[in-house]
Order: sequence, then structure tokens, then C-alpha cells
Amino acid sequence: MANSFVQVSPDSHFSLQNLPYGIFHPRDAAADQPSPRPGVAIGDYVLDLSAIASAGLFDGPILKSSSECFLQTTLNAFLQLGRPAWKEARATIQKLLSADEPTLRDNASLRKKSLFPMSEVEMLLPTVIGDYTDFFSSMHHAKNCGTIFRGPENAIPVNWFHLPIAYHGRASSIVISGTDIIRPRGQGYPISDSPPSFGPSKKMDFELEMAAIVGPGNELGKPVNVNEALDHIFGLVLMNDWSARDIQAWEYVPLGPFLGKSFGTTISPWIVTLDALEPFSCDAPNQVPNPLPYLAESKHKNYDIPLQVWIKPAGQNDPFLVTKSNFNNLYWTLSQQVAHHTINGCNLRPGDLLGTGTISGPEPDSLGCLLELTWNGKNLLDLNGVSRHFLEDGDEVIFSACCKGNNYNVGFGKCSGKILPAHP
Amino acid sequence: MANSFVQVSPDSHFSLQNLPYGIFHPRDAAADQPSPRPGVAIGDYVLDLSAIASAGLFDGPILKSSSECFLQTTLNAFLQLGRPAWKEARATIQKLLSADEPTLRDNASLRKKSLFPMSEVEMLLPTVIGDYTDFFSSMHHAKNCGTIFRGPENAIPVNWFHLPIAYHGRASSIVISGTDIIRPRGQGYPISDSPPSFGPSKKMDFELEMAAIVGPGNELGKPVNVNEALDHIFGLVLMNDWSARDIQAWEYVPLGPFLGKSFGTTISPWIVTLDALEPFSCDAPNQVPNPLPYLAESKHKNYDIPLQVWIKPAGQNDPFLVTKSNFNNLYWTLSQQVAHHTINGCNLRPGDLLGTGTISGPEPDSLGCLLELTWNGKNLLDLNGVSRHFLEDGDEVIFSACCKGNNYNVGFGKCSGKILPAHP
Repeated sequence: MANSFVQVSPDSHFSLQNLPYGIFHPRDAAADQPSPRPGVAIGDYVLDLSAIASAGLFDGPILKSSSECFLQTTLNAFLQLGRPAWKEARATIQKLLSADEPTLRDNASLRKKSLFPMSEVEMLLPTVIGDYTDFFSSMHHAKNCGTIFRGPENAIPVNWFHLPIAYHGRASSIVISGTDIIRPRGQGYPISDSPPSFGPSKKMDFELEMAAIVGPGNELGKPVNVNEALDHIFGLVLMNDWSARDIQAWEYVPLGPFLGKSFGTTISPWIVTLDALEPFSCDAPNQVPNPLPYLAESKHKNYDIPLQVWIKPAGQNDPFLVTKSNFNNLYWTLSQQVAHHTINGCNLRPGDLLGTGTISGPEPDSLGCLLELTWNGKNLLDLNGVSRHFLEDGDEVIFSACCKGNNYNVGFGKCSGKILPAHP
Repeated sequence: MANSFVQVSPDSHFSLQNLPYGIFHPRDAAADQPSPRPGVAIGDYVLDLSAIASAGLFDGPILKSSSECFLQTTLNAFLQLGRPAWKEARATIQKLLSADEPTLRDNASLRKKSLFPMSEVEMLLPTVIGDYTDFFSSMHHAKNCGTIFRGPENAIPVNWFHLPIAYHGRASSIVISGTDIIRPRGQGYPISDSPPSFGPSKKMDFELEMAAIVGPGNELGKPVNVNEALDHIFGLVLMNDWSARDIQAWEYVPLGPFLGKSFGTTISPWIVTLDALEPFSCDAPNQVPNPLPYLAESKHKNYDIPLQVWIKPAGQNDPFLVTKSNFNNLYWTLSQQVAHHTINGCNLRPGDLLGTGTISGPEPDSLGCLLELTWNGKNLLDLNGVSRHFLEDGDEVIFSACCKGNNYNVGFGKCSGKILPAHP
């Protein structure tokens, strides 16, 4: 593939092969720059898709008559169009940005209108998220959590190997990378006969997740076939499912996590499409026992996406790498998650978010949360001289993910958030 | 209070003292009747608030400049305005509809434009529901379910008396009364070493609930004080939290209900305001142990709302009364639910739905679901010659609620749904 006329440094996440979608607005938006709007990342720039659409450059058979999807303040309308439209948009944008295509390259006025330095824009939530579902699809995470909370005999619940367990999360408190997270207050386990404890959480944790963004939905009552499920997924983002372990432990029986999670969930701003991730697809783990027929897929595939977690402790200048994991640690695939989610007729809608659950690997340095890394606070995690059981006020947690191609990257950028003290 | 010039029969739920809000459109909407739009029920009629707003009749200090909230397709904008605006709207509408006020009574053209026979309109979901939360606030229900699933020793979880337990529900599959419900398919418990069962649910159930509709929300990170919590609640609807007990039982450990619920949740179309329900407020149950300070309210009140469940079995002409309960069976109040939901900083948004959980009373004929009425299918429920363990295809379930005032009713109308066979 040709390079772009926009400079893309070798370590940039945003090559011409990537082209992730987000919603941005220029920080100092003048009155004639309606904002927010859809954009695509290329190197250190954002290509304004509303400017490209207004210039009539989406001229393929589908988008010619529906490029108003790029004049919206969210990506929902574009997502609803489905994969043929997504492929057409990708081809159009790749051509427009390529070094040997003069249309944009040689049009200074259009370049000025449509290419914004990334440092001069603010990123917003990319979609209206109607519903947010969180799965529990890493076996290592399920095993470690189960061992911590219920002991090694009953570590993984008996249903776990038969269905991709999930619960509904809170959509209203999903925020974009860079948003501060206020430490939640809440109840914790009583000590003997006392009332429950109450106050700022003492066990603030991150959870390393990714999340799929739903494209076209399905009608209520009409399940999605597992072999067609990926047509309902537009792409992936990084997600930090912040967790207050003390609140969670006290509240979650019998109806599941609630306030231990709903104070904030952070996602990265750029949706990397499944089309861009296709070169990094790989075999998914062998499943024993065999899944039921509605979960048995003809192509059982995963994605090889290396993931990193960095913590920048309060008062320190440098972040410290604490976890290296990979999306391919997931036991249940995206398509199995979609097929399971809809088998009862539940309807998905464009822009819905499907979290993977914490992505832990088998090695001690591949665990996706402090609950596992410190074994529920029993061990100290050393961060280059500073140590932690759980997160302290001022700590910043930074996720990063990048697939390495042949002289190009398909990366996700960062998903970060800093813990602020609880309100008094 | 004066009567209305619109005839209200003595058994009508929709008196001049009620005036519940909904979203409707005329069934045979002509091109010049934009739809859907907000309306208020009065007797057998719907007052079109968009017509009243367009006629400039919302002339109070608040709504004079913001009556465009009635030109929307949902009630969210009106809900966001808060109680002062709601009280002003109620006063304006009560005056307009009263027998001794000529403005609407004597204006035939405006009456024609603004009053629609209820039989000629279709009701739609009243709000965009960003998030739907379901509580678990009836002690009798908690005790019965716990006894059935975990035995009498551990019937009520130890946390239940300290916090109003809740989980996030699925917003996308909330439907309006009258919508058919397709029997879901899914996995159930394996028998000994077999794989899990799979197929149409064999334990289809209803759950008698009510749900609060959120008015003004709160900012992320800013909890709502329990003594100000009712200012965030606009009103109540009836809700049927349809449940597939076999799917639920197999999937819900450890993360809570998911596919056993998310195939459909039915709400009644008319939101009865807390202002209309105020004459029916009553003391809430004494709470032992004392709730923590953030849940201790200066006015611990409930509402006396008699509830009924009727089942019309497939092939029968008449519905049969199976349950008489009351909203005042709830142990945790609406204000405690709101205070708890937000104590961690979680943000509520206008139009959000807060289900009460199944409202069972202490008597055998006051149980709010078949799980309790038939003790998980052990006993047969007799419906006037027909009998049921759980719901069968073609069965219709109808909830009704009506507060009896002095010569007037404040009622909720019906919340109904019929079970259709699973897709093959």
C-alpha cells in the first residue's frame, strides 16, 4: 500500500492502514466550524469527514447518497449503514490520503479546512451508547477472581464454559479518555456485628478491557446468527472498567455489580475498525466442552492485539509498565458474544458497547487489574520505588494497544484517567 | 376541586386530579398532524399538549418561555425542567380542563384540534430511556426468592437490609403496553453430566413492578441527597419485568440477571406524577437496622397504590385476578433508591427508569410473580378451571393500579402483554 502524503512517523499508531474513527471538535472552534463532527486519525492529524463530505468526495455508490452521516455529531448514523458502507468509506479515505493522489494533497484550501493537528482538537464520545454490556470472557481473569472470592475449589463457575457470561453496565457514566475519575463513596462489608463500613472506596482498581462498538442492530425478537455476527461489529476501543472492589464485594450478591462499577468507565476515543484489524486476526482458543450449536462458529477467530497498562503514581513524572496482555487471551470471541447476547431476542442498537471483561493472560505480568496483580491487596505492587495495593488519589492509569504490521502500526492510542479524591 | 367539562366516568382512572403524561399519535395521522407528541389523559380522551402549547396557553412564568418542550416526540425535555415547571403545567392543564373555565370548553375549533378519543390514538414509549435500573425492594419477594433458590436459612442476603440492592437492566428492549412478547430461547441447567438444555424457555414468568421516571438528573460525581431525592422523580408507571426463570437460574451467578430478563420489559404508557399521587402518600415501613446516614430520610414515605395482576389464559375470553398487592409493600423508598444509586457519583439522566423490583406482599394472594405463586412450578395456579405452572403461549398478563380518592380515581390504566411462541 502507498504511504500517505500526511507524515506518519514509524511509531505512530495511526497509519494509512489504520484510519480509526472518532468524534472531535477543534479546541478553539470559530463560529463557522460547526462541532462536534466525525474524523479519522492519520499520523498526528485528524481528517475532518464533515469537510470531506461537504466537498462531495464520498462519491462511491453507497455514500454518494448518504454522506450526511458524516454531518452528524456522533457516528451512530454511519455505524447503522453497515460493512459495505464502511468498506467504501475506508477505500475513499485511503485513496484521498495516499501520497500519489492529488485531490486533497494538492488542494491547499481543502487541506486547511479538513486536516487538524491532533494537538488542537478535543476528542468526545464517538457514539450515543444506548446500552453497555460487559462480558467476562478471559478464563484467567475468571479463575483468579473466583479463587480470590470463593476459593480454588469453586474458582470458575460451572456455567462459565458453556456461555459467555455478561451483565448490563451503566451507560450514563461512560467517559472519554482523559476524564478525571472521582473516587466513589459507598458501603463495604461490616466487621463482625458493626454496621457496614461507609466512606471513600479503599480498593480502587482499574480493569484492562476492550469494547466492541455495535454497527447495525437487530430487531427485537430476532437473534443474530453466530456466523453473521461480525457484520454487526464496527470496531474496537480500549476500555477501563474502573472498579471499587470493597463496594463491589459487599453489594454484588445476588444481582451482580452495580455501584462498584457505575461511577465511571473510560473508553479510548478512536474506534479501530475490524477491517483494519483483519491482518491481525488469529485462531481463537480451542473450546472444551464444545459450545452449543448456536455458539459454534465456522470461523473461530480472535485478534492479536498487544495490550499494555501503565500507572503513573501521584507525584511521579513517569508512568510505569505494570501489565502486558493481549486481546487473544479471550476465550469467548466477539461473534460468540453477539450470538449469545441476542439468542433470547434481545435487540442491539448502533453504537452499543460490548465490553470484553478484564483481559488477563496466564503470566504474572499479564494480569489485567490490581485485584489480581496484588491478590486483593495481599501483595504490594512495586512501581519503580513507589508501591501500591490499590490506586491512590492522583494516580493515573494509562492503557495502550498497538498491532505491529510490516512497517506500519494499527494502534488504538491511549485510554487514560486519573483518580481524584472523593468529595467530602 | 371542580370537575372537568370532559366527561369522566366514576370508574375512569383519569380524573382531573390525575392528569398523567404520555406520548401518543393519532392512529390515522394526516400529514398535517405531526406525530408523536405529548399528551395528558382525561376520562376517555387525550389532551394534545403540542396543540395547547401552539395555542400559547402555557402562559405561566416558566413554561411561557419553554413550552417548546411540548413540541417534542418524547417527554425528556419537559422532565428536565423539574418540579416547578411540572407544577405549573399541572395547574394550567387542570384549569383549562375544568368545567368552569371557558377557554377550551367553549372553543370548538381548539377542542377538535386538541382532544382525541383515546380509542383513536396509539401510545408510544413516553421517554428516551438512557439507562434502566431494577431494584429488589420488596422484602417478601426477596425472602420468597431466596427461600426457593437458596433455602430458608439464607433466604435474604445479609446486605439486603443495609442497601437497596439493584442491577442494571436492558434499555433497548423496553416496550409499551400491548406489545407482544416473543418467548425467548436460551440455555438452562444441565441435567447431571449432559450439556446445558437449550430451547424455548419453559418457565416464562411476569414480575409485578412499578418504575419511577427520572426528571432532572445529577452531574457525574455529585450524589443526590436523600431529602432532595424526590425532586428528581417525575412520576410512576406500571412495569412487567418479564422473566425466563430457567435461563435466569443458570446464568445469574456470579454477575446477575442478563438474558433471563433482556428479551422484553413492558411499561404502561401513562406516567402518573408524584404530585397526583401525593394525597395517597403514607408512612413507609419501619427499618431495622437503621439505615446508614446517607439513606436516613427526614420524611420516610411511601404511596398507597393498590395493584392487581390478571391473567387471560390462551383461548379464554376473560382475565382472571391472580394477585392483589400494593406499592406500599416496598421496604426501600423511592428517595432511598435515588440516594443509593447516586452515592458513588453515578449520574442519572432525565427519562431514566428505576424499577422497584417485584412488589410482593405478605399474603399468599399478594405475590408478584408465578415463581412465588406456584413456588417455582411446584404448585398449580388455578385460573377458573385452567391451571398454570408458568405462562403458556397465548397467555396475556394484565397489570392494573388505581388509587381511590374521594369521588375520583388516580389510576395508571393497564400494562399488558401477550406471550407469542418462540421463533423456530
